[in-house]
Amino acid sequence: MPTYKAPVDDTLFLLNDVFHIDRYNNLPGFADASPDVVEAVLREAGKFTEEVLAPLNRVGDKEGCTRHPDGRVTTPTGFKDAYRQLRDGGWIGMSAPGEYGGQGLPSTLTVIVNEYLASANLAFSMYPGLVQGAVAALVQHGNDELKQKYLPHLISGEWAGTMNLTEPHCGTDLGLLRTKAVKQGNGSYKISGTKIFISGGEQDLTENIVHLVLARIEGAPEGTKGISLFVVPKLLDGAPNGVSCGSIEEKMGIHGNSTCVMNYDGATGWLVGEENRGLNAMFTMMNEARLGVGLQGLALSEVAYQNAVVYAKERLQGRALTGAKAPDKPADPIIVHPDVRRVLMTMRAFNEAARALVIWTALNGDISHRSPDTKQRESADDAMGLLTPVVKGVLTDMGFANTVLAQQVFGGHGYIAEHGMEQFVRDARIAMIYEGANGIQALDLVGRKLARNGGRAIMAFFNEAQGYVKDRAANEAMGPYVKPLEKSLAHLQQATMWFMNNAMAKPDNAGAGSYDYMHLFGLVALGYMWCRIAEAAQAKLAAKEGDAQQYNTKLVLGRFFMERMLPETATRLSRIETGAASTMELPAEAF
Amino acid sequence: MPTYKAPVDDTLFLLNDVFHIDRYNNLPGFADASPDVVEAVLREAGKFTEEVLAPLNRVGDKEGCTRHPDGRVTTPTGFKDAYRQLRDGGWIGMSAPGEYGGQGLPSTLTVIVNEYLASANLAFSMYPGLVQGAVAALVQHGNDELKQKYLPHLISGEWAGTMNLTEPHCGTDLGLLRTKAVKQGNGSYKISGTKIFISGGEQDLTENIVHLVLARIEGAPEGTKGISLFVVPKLLDGAPNGVSCGSIEEKMGIHGNSTCVMNYDGATGWLVGEENRGLNAMFTMMNEARLGVGLQGLALSEVAYQNAVVYAKERLQGRALTGAKAPDKPADPIIVHPDVRRVLMTMRAFNEAARALVIWTALNGDISHRSPDTKQRESADDAMGLLTPVVKGVLTDMGFANTVLAQQVFGGHGYIAEHGMEQFVRDARIAMIYEGANGIQALDLVGRKLARNGGRAIMAFFNEAQGYVKDRAANEAMGPYVKPLEKSLAHLQQATMWFMNNAMAKPDNAGAGSYDYMHLFGLVALGYMWCRIAEAAQAKLAAKEGDAQQYNTKLVLGRFFMERMLPETATRLSRIETGAASTMELPAEAF
Repeated sequence: MPTYKAPVDDTLFLLNDVFHIDRYNNLPGFADASPDVVEAVLREAGKFTEEVLAPLNRVGDKEGCTRHPDGRVTTPTGFKDAYRQLRDGGWIGMSAPGEYGGQGLPSTLTVIVNEYLASANLAFSMYPGLVQGAVAALVQHGNDELKQKYLPHLISGEWAGTMNLTEPHCGTDLGLLRTKAVKQGNGSYKISGTKIFISGGEQDLTENIVHLVLARIEGAPEGTKGISLFVVPKLLDGAPNGVSCGSIEEKMGIHGNSTCVMNYDGATGWLVGEENRGLNAMFTMMNEARLGVGLQGLALSEVAYQNAVVYAKERLQGRALTGAKAPDKPADPIIVHPDVRRVLMTMRAFNEAARALVIWTALNGDISHRSPDTKQRESADDAMGLLTPVVKGVLTDMGFANTVLAQQVFGGHGYIAEHGMEQFVRDARIAMIYEGANGIQALDLVGRKLARNGGRAIMAFFNEAQGYVKDRAANEAMGPYVKPLEKSLAHLQQATMWFMNNAMAKPDNAGAGSYDYMHLFGLVALGYMWCRIAEAAQAKLAAKEGDAQQYNTKLVLGRFFMERMLPETATRLSRIETGAASTMELPAEAF
Repeated sequence: MPTYKAPVDDTLFLLNDVFHIDRYNNLPGFADASPDVVEAVLREAGKFTEEVLAPLNRVGDKEGCTRHPDGRVTTPTGFKDAYRQLRDGGWIGMSAPGEYGGQGLPSTLTVIVNEYLASANLAFSMYPGLVQGAVAALVQHGNDELKQKYLPHLISGEWAGTMNLTEPHCGTDLGLLRTKAVKQGNGSYKISGTKIFISGGEQDLTENIVHLVLARIEGAPEGTKGISLFVVPKLLDGAPNGVSCGSIEEKMGIHGNSTCVMNYDGATGWLVGEENRGLNAMFTMMNEARLGVGLQGLALSEVAYQNAVVYAKERLQGRALTGAKAPDKPADPIIVHPDVRRVLMTMRAFNEAARALVIWTALNGDISHRSPDTKQRESADDAMGLLTPVVKGVLTDMGFANTVLAQQVFGGHGYIAEHGMEQFVRDARIAMIYEGANGIQALDLVGRKLARNGGRAIMAFFNEAQGYVKDRAANEAMGPYVKPLEKSLAHLQQATMWFMNNAMAKPDNAGAGSYDYMHLFGLVALGYMWCRIAEAAQAKLAAKEGDAQQYNTKLVLGRFFMERMLPETATRLSRIETGAASTMELPAEAF
C-alpha cells in the first residue's frame, strides 16, 4: 500500500525563500496569507491528504464508480465522507471571493493544496477541482443573478460543478459541436445533445451538480463563432432538469472519478456571458484549468518518487559496485546501485523544479487578476499565458514518465496491483490527454502564445532569464547552474528565431517542431527554476539558517539537473531545425 | 476494437533483400527455408494471428484468468481453442530438432512468427513462448532420458513449460534463492519452496506442464554457485506431483496470461545439467529469452502504430495548417497535422529498423548454433551476446513509449478501454521489467558484454559498422544515411573509450552511465539497420523491382530516423561523460 507525505517544507521554502511571497502583500488576499497562516494551512492540508485521502486511493481504483439502472452514480467507499470533510474544512472555496462565502486567499495557495490532493488521490481531487473551475467561470462571466444563485452553493461545496465540452465526434475541434440550445420566452434555454468524457457528471457526493455546457443556439453561425456557454443545474429547485448520465466509461485509470456520458434532453439552462462567445468564456478559464492539470503531472511524480525511495531503501538485492554497504545483511538495499540512484535523482530533480514552476506560474496568475497596476497585470498575464502550455504539456509528460520510472524501481512488484505503483502510471496518463492533449498545448505555445502581441511575452521571458544569467556572470558559486542555463537558453532563442525565419511561409515547419519546442522551453524553464532554488539555498547556507543538509541536497539535485537533464535541449533544437520535410513528405496512403 | 495485419511483406523484404537469407543455405535447416516456404509460412502465420488471436486480445484483457478454489486455473474464453489450433498448426516446434518431432527450421523464423503472435495477443503468445524456452533448456542441458521423456510432448505442444526463478525476496539477485532440493535414492530430488511471478504456472490449455525450477540442493554453497536447475512436471505419470498454484496475481496488464504463485511441497524433480551449475544453464538460454522479450516491444509498437494510423485517417478534427485537405468534409482527418505525422513517423521509423535488428540478432543466434565453422560460430555468438541486452532494453523501452504515443493519437478515446489502445500500453509495460529489468540489461551490456574476451564483440561491431560507412563514403545516394550514422557511431566509440578510461578505477561511473550507453548503442544499431534497409530499397528501385512507393517510403522513413531520432546520441554521450558524481553524492538519508 503506497504512502504519501505532503512536501510542506519544500513548498514553504519556495514560497518564502525563492519567491518571497511577502513582496506581494499589496495584493488583495496576500496580506492575510502571512507566513504563519500559510504554514498552518499547508500543514493542515498535508494532514488531510495524508490521513484521509491517500488511504482511499487504492480503494477508489479497485471499486471504481457504479452507475445504477436508475441513472444514479455512486462513488467508491469512503469518498462521500472524505468529501464532507473536504467541504467542512473550507478547502474548496479557499481562494474564492469573500462576498460569496470564499476566503479570498491567493489562488497560489489553492494550487499548492491541489498538488497535495492530486498526489494523495487524483481521482478524488478532480471533483473539487471541477467545482473551482465552475466558480471561476461564473465569477468571470456570470451575471449577478447567476452569481447569487450558484456561487454560494458551489463555494461552500454543497453543490459540485462540471465542464461539458466534448461530444462523440468533436474534442479538440469544438467548431464541430452540435449540442443545441433553444431560447425560451423567460430568458432561459432548452439544451439538448450528448456530451462525453464528463468528469464527475453524476455522483453521490453533493446534493446538486452545476453543469457548464457548451452548446449552439438555434440559428447561430457554424464553427467556433456560434458556440455559447450555459449553466444547467442537475436539479432545478429540487426537481430533475432533463439531464442524466447515460453511462460511465470503462477507462485506464482515475477509476474513482465518474467519467460520464451526459444526455441533455431539453434541460433548462441559462446563458453565461454573451451569445456565441462561449469559447471566449472558456478560454479565460483555460489557463487556470491547464495549470491545474499540469500540476497533476508533478503530483503523481512526487507520490511515485516517495514510494520508490521507500522501496529502494528496503529491497535487498545485489551488492554495491564499490563493495558491500550492508555487510551484515544478505544483500545491499538497491539504493546503492548507480542506476537506481539515477532514477531517483531524475524524478526528484524534476519534482522540485516543477513545483517551483507551478508556484511561479500561479503567482503570475494571482498578479494578473489582483494587481492594481495595469502594466504589472499585463506582464503577469503574458507570463501566465506563455507558461501555461509549457506547464501543462511538459509537466504531464515528464510526470507520467516518472511514474513509469518509479514503477521500474519495484521490478516485477511494480507491475502487480498491490503496491499501487501501476495505478500511478494509469492515473498519470490522463493528464497528458485531457484539458487539451499535449500536442495541442505545443500548438497553442508555438502558434498562438509566441506570436501574440508581437512576441511580447517570449521577449519578456528572454529578458528576465538573460538578465538573471548576466547579473550572476561573476558569481562563482552559481556558475554550475547559470552557465548550463545560458547555453540552453541560447538553444531556445535559436529555436524561436528558426520559427520566425522558417515557419511564416511554411507553417508545417512550426507544426513539426512544436512538440520539441514545448519540451525545450520546459527544460529551460525548469533550469531557470533550479538557478533560483540554488541561489536561495546558498543564501540559507551562508546565513546558517535551517537544516544545512536540506539545502545541500538541493544544490546536488540542481547540479544533477544541469549536468544530466538540461543538455537534452541540444537534441530538441537539432530536431526543430530539420523542419517538416521528412515528417510531411509521405502521402497519407503510405501509412 | 483494434485490428492487426501481420507485416509479412516487410519481413520478406528484410529476409530476402536486406539480409539475403539464402546466403546461409549451408546451415542445417536453412536450405529447407526456401523463399517459397518462408513466404507460405509467414502468410499462414499472418492469417492465424490476424483472424484467430487478435480478436481474443480484448477478451483476454477483460476476462483475465481465474483460479478456482481447487487450484485449477482457467484461461479466457477462446484461448483453449486457439491454443489447440496453434498446436495443430505445428507452430510451437517449428525450429525444434527434428529427432524429437520438430521441423528444424531456422530459429529466425520462429522469432518472426513470435513477433506476429505478440502483436496479435501478447498474453496468449507467452504460453507457447515459454514452451520454446523449456525446449531450449532441455535440448542444451538435459540428459538423454529427460530429452526422450519431455521433448516430444513439449515440441508437439501437448505439454507446456514454465520458468521458475523468482522468489518473494529474490528476483535479480538469484544468489538469495531459498527453494530447496533434497536428493532421493533413485536419482530424483524433492523440491520445496515458493516461486512467484510464474507466467503460465497453471492453466487449462495443456494436459501437463513442465516446470523448470531453480533450487538449492541441501548442503550446496550459498550464493549463485549453489543453484541447480530441475525439471518438475505438474503431473507425474498422470498423478499430481506436489506442485500447485497458490494464487494468481492482480496486475497491470497481460491479464490473459496467468501469473502464478507456485508452491512446491516436496515435488519430485530431476536435475537438468550439472549440480550447482543451474545459473549457467539458465544463462545459455538467456539470449534467446531476452531476444524474445525485446521483440515484444516491437510487436506492441507495431500493432499500436497500425491502429493509430487507422484512427488518424478517420478522425476529423481541425484543418491542415496549409489549407483544407478535405474541403468536402466538416474537418480534415487528423493525419494532416504535422504533430500527428511526427508521432506516426516516429513509431514506424522505429518499427521497421527494430524488426531488422531483431532478425539480424536472430540470424546471429542461428549461425552461432548451426554453423560448421568455429570462427563463424564464435563471432556470431559474440554479436548475439552483445546485441541481446540492447534489443531487450531498447526495444521494450521504445516500444512502450510508442504505445503511449499511439494512445495519444486517440485523445480521450485512447484512455477508454473500448478502443484497446490503453491495453497495449498496459501490456507493453511488462516487457521492460521481466526477463531482467532494463537497468539490468544495461549493466549486463556495460559490465559484462563490453569487457568479455578483451572487448572482442564490441570491436567487431565497430569494425563492421565503420567498414560499412567507409565503403560508402563516395556513394552520394547513401550520404543522408551513412553520414549521420558515422557521427553517432563516433559518439558510441567515444562513450566506450570514456568507460575504459574512467570506469575501471570507479565502477560507479559505468553504473551511472550504463542506461544511457544502452540507448546510445540502440540508436546506433537502429541507424545501422536503416542504412542497410535504405541501400536495399535503393537497389530495388534501381532494378525497378516491386512496388516503388513501398521502397520510397522506406527511404523517407530512414531520413526521418537519421534527422530526428538518431541525433539523440549526442545527449546520451554528454550524460555519460558527466560521470557518477552528482548521481552518487547524496547520502541515502537525503532521499
